[in-house]
Amino acid sequence: MTQSTDSQNFEGQKIDQMLKDKMPALGIDLGGTKIGCAPVCDRKVIGEPKKVPTPKGADKIVDQLVELIEDARKDHILRGVGIATAGIVNTETGEVIGSTGNLPGWAGTPIKKIIESRTGLPVHVDNDANAAAYGEVRSLGLTEKTCVVAVTLGTGIGGGIIMKGQLYRGAHYAAGEIGHLRVNLNNHRLCTCGLFDCWEAYGAGRGFRATAKEMLTNVTVDQTPLAALLPDPPVDKVCAAALEGDIIAQRIVQTWHEHVCAGIVTLAHTLDPDCFIVSGGMSKFVNYELLKELVIDKCMPRVGERLDIHRSSLGDVAGIIGAAEIALDHLVIGC
Amino acid sequence: MTQSTDSQNFEGQKIDQMLKDKMPALGIDLGGTKIGCAPVCDRKVIGEPKKVPTPKGADKIVDQLVELIEDARKDHILRGVGIATAGIVNTETGEVIGSTGNLPGWAGTPIKKIIESRTGLPVHVDNDANAAAYGEVRSLGLTEKTCVVAVTLGTGIGGGIIMKGQLYRGAHYAAGEIGHLRVNLNNHRLCTCGLFDCWEAYGAGRGFRATAKEMLTNVTVDQTPLAALLPDPPVDKVCAAALEGDIIAQRIVQTWHEHVCAGIVTLAHTLDPDCFIVSGGMSKFVNYELLKELVIDKCMPRVGERLDIHRSSLGDVAGIIGAAEIALDHLVIGC
Repeated sequence: MTQSTDSQNFEGQKIDQMLKDKMPALGIDLGGTKIGCAPVCDRKVIGEPKKVPTPKGADKIVDQLVELIEDARKDHILRGVGIATAGIVNTETGEVIGSTGNLPGWAGTPIKKIIESRTGLPVHVDNDANAAAYGEVRSLGLTEKTCVVAVTLGTGIGGGIIMKGQLYRGAHYAAGEIGHLRVNLNNHRLCTCGLFDCWEAYGAGRGFRATAKEMLTNVTVDQTPLAALLPDPPVDKVCAAALEGDIIAQRIVQTWHEHVCAGIVTLAHTLDPDCFIVSGGMSKFVNYELLKELVIDKCMPRVGERLDIHRSSLGDVAGIIGAAEIALDHLVIGC
Repeated sequence: MTQSTDSQNFEGQKIDQMLKDKMPALGIDLGGTKIGCAPVCDRKVIGEPKKVPTPKGADKIVDQLVELIEDARKDHILRGVGIATAGIVNTETGEVIGSTGNLPGWAGTPIKKIIESRTGLPVHVDNDANAAAYGEVRSLGLTEKTCVVAVTLGTGIGGGIIMKGQLYRGAHYAAGEIGHLRVNLNNHRLCTCGLFDCWEAYGAGRGFRATAKEMLTNVTVDQTPLAALLPDPPVDKVCAAALEGDIIAQRIVQTWHEHVCAGIVTLAHTLDPDCFIVSGGMSKFVNYELLKELVIDKCMPRVGERLDIHRSSLGDVAGIIGAAEIALDHLVIGC
């Protein structure tokens, strides 16, 4: 390579970087019930994210995604599109290759190829929990850390593993499926995936409610007014009762923390990360001091003490920001 | 840098590589009961490994290590020494920083510094399970794989995670402590580490015997002659009885496989590795076909099917070979 092409390349990279800094990518977070999207620039969303219900069926989802992109283009010159979706994603082809219970018919759709051909924009598709993890790590400036594990505690549990600023995807794009860690033996509790005793059957919102149901069965309303909420006691009511001193509610909340702790301890002993970042709808119910205490108690010496467990600072825009950031980084450095 | 120093560096690297190819490093595997060692060249041990009992106390262990090194030097020009030891090792300083129940007083010893000053040879110290994993991956030519997890099923369970040919050590040198994954809730079985329900309390040799004891309690010798072996039924006798058709023995062996499976499934969902390599004293009792079937059954679709589970080809020299290979690679490429 001659000196002159070297300089041209260098100039090209500088221009790429300047463009990246100025032009947003559209981040799209595609969930089972709703689609959220916003233009993202400099690791921040521009304006309030737009939310629409997720239509039924792959074709209609694609139409909806194209409509959202075209809408955003009315106000922004987009550099690309990042799509975060449930399911195991082949990030090279941009196709969902694993099952996605919440999006029937979605697996097998060549998302990247279709959206690129319909919009003319470069598209990157990734797993939603991976995208959220990437967004968190970029926003918090944790890209130099050896390992950060992002845990999404929602209806289920998702995860993303970031090593030295890069997503660890595993050998078949399935790394970080931490909702399906086995935390119990003997087929005690069925998970929605069809397996027994997955972490999310205990530690996610659904798991909290199952624990509450178990503990409230055979309890009378004289003992706790929560007994009246069976068969499906809502998480917020149980947590509120615990704060107000209801002993049974406190026991449910404590047990849920122990269940969340079990998966964290397993991940700590496997990956020895610098820190965990907890997000998702259930993260607001976590008592971080209690969780940290439990984790230290259940980890080997020198593992638990050094772990940080943070609550997400991005909330539900982590997936949108992360999806857009990965797309931008792919366009600039092809990572 | 001038053209001439570039060439000199290149020549220097070539000479380094040639030296590495010709001169062995001494690999030492320091266990709680015995020390094994052998010179290693080209990923193979030279001759039969030497074994001596592990002396009591840090000073005596160091003296024994120096004696083994000096003995080996009588027959070989050593390029360096690799030491694999139990415990969490700071591989920069060559010091054991975590507790090592089987080697009282060993933690805190600046092993690398002392042995280097007493022998004048470069020394690399690493965790024993990590060294064994490195040895396996080098020997099998798996250095290009995204992720290989080596599982040592012995009295306890150790592990090493190799990504693209390099050991993944975590943020505080404690990654791969997979014996302490939590596989059960509610404090059912105490582990030797002081925690409850660690994987090794079920899946290791000690776990097998605990399961056998549980299942044989309240069983008479008329039902199975194994009942006479209580309170501590030996693993080989139970496995032999299972092969001969003893139904209770078969149930114990099946349950043990389910316990081994639980940890493998958790690791598969976290790391999505290309393959697992199983070694250690218990590995000969594994029915790999049964284990693979159980893992597929307990993993999400597209995760279990693609996993390979191999039995180690190196057996108990994996640690010796791995320790020496890491030392050689550090000397040549400073990895």
